[in-house]
Amino acid sequence: METVPAYTATKPQLLARLKRIEGQTRGVQKMVEDDRYCIDVLTQISAIQAALDKVALGLLDEHVKHCVVEGHGPGTTDELTDEMMSAIGRLITR
Amino acid sequence: METVPAYTATKPQLLARLKRIEGQTRGVQKMVEDDRYCIDVLTQISAIQAALDKVALGLLDEHVKHCVVEGHGPGTTDELTDEMMSAIGRLITR
Amino acid sequence: METVPAYTATKPQLLARLKRIEGQTRGVQKMVEDDRYCIDVLTQISAIQAALDKVALGLLDEHVKHCVVEGHGPGTTDELTDEMMSAIGRLITR
Amino acid sequence: METVPAYTATKPQLLARLKRIEGQTRGVQKMVEDDRYCIDVLTQISAIQAALDKVALGLLDEHVKHCVVEGHGPGTTDELTDEMMSAIGRLITR
Repeated sequence: METVPAYTATKPQLLARLKRIEGQTRGVQKMVEDDRYCIDVLTQISAIQAALDKVALGLLDEHVKHCVVEGHGPGTTDELTDEMMSAIGRLITR
Repeated sequence: METVPAYTATKPQLLARLKRIEGQTRGVQKMVEDDRYCIDVLTQISAIQAALDKVALGLLDEHVKHCVVEGHGPGTTDELTDEMMSAIGRLITR
Repeated sequence: METVPAYTATKPQLLARLKRIEGQTRGVQKMVEDDRYCIDVLTQISAIQAALDKVALGLLDEHVKHCVVEGHGPGTTDELTDEMMSAIGRLITR
Repeated sequence: METVPAYTATKPQLLARLKRIEGQTRGVQKMVEDDRYCIDVLTQISAIQAALDKVALGLLDEHVKHCVVEGHGPGTTDELTDEMMSAIGRLITR
């Protein structure tokens, strides 16, 4: 039975990054409320996207190392790999 | 002098979408706190990215129509177009 | 009646870049024929994607300047903008 | 010593797809030579990008299954995973 996720060791850093991303989304709302110039709003949205990319790549890395390679994930290696490839596909093509 | 941004007419909807995205980022933090499976966390991150893409495309659309075409932006048409192309470049290549 | 496309002035450079991209796709085939390491093949594919991004951004830039802003495109400004936004959406979300 | 790449079993299909992509890049050159409308050229470029994404995801899938999981790659599992994550990062952020 598997209850510990692959990101356990880095959970505090992961939560800190997600908290910062939440703050960035509030920042964009503030910009819109203040009628800031559209291009500046777009720049901030790109910054959030880049921060989410980094979080996603970090999670994927831990998933490969802990679940796929070490076999700690919920399923056979083939199932875990297929699942991971779908996740990568969604990140690449959205 | 131009003080009204291109998204003025749709500002309430834009703020509602950004509020929803903020909620999604809180949802991802909750998933991590609850030790949810990494692939499920990644799926939610992709959903946030897709929602941000939609907001960005909406803003770009209004920018083209109001600032670039109608000439209401802060600069010459060439400056506005260059600025917009940089924003599109950042969205595509991040 | 409009028959000259927005990229007329830069057509030779555009064709040269596309020719180079065609060469890159042949290079990837050669790598696969030679049983080269998968990660090296992937690196080359990313290089082609980046080259295609640059061509696409160049075309968009000329489209905005010549068709949308100067009104030389086949349609009203609103139609041209909608069409362009769809193209940008396809580039961002593929 | 490892000389067989992860894609050996699907090499003919992989080459066929790359050949088709090469043909698509020639098709785009023909469109530009024929002065076709910029948005139509962009649509074709997006189609090539999507085709390259599919090839890349297929290669990654085989890489994970044959190199990372089965340990047939040139390096330790950690090195293979790091290398793969860099490749995924390049595909996502280009």
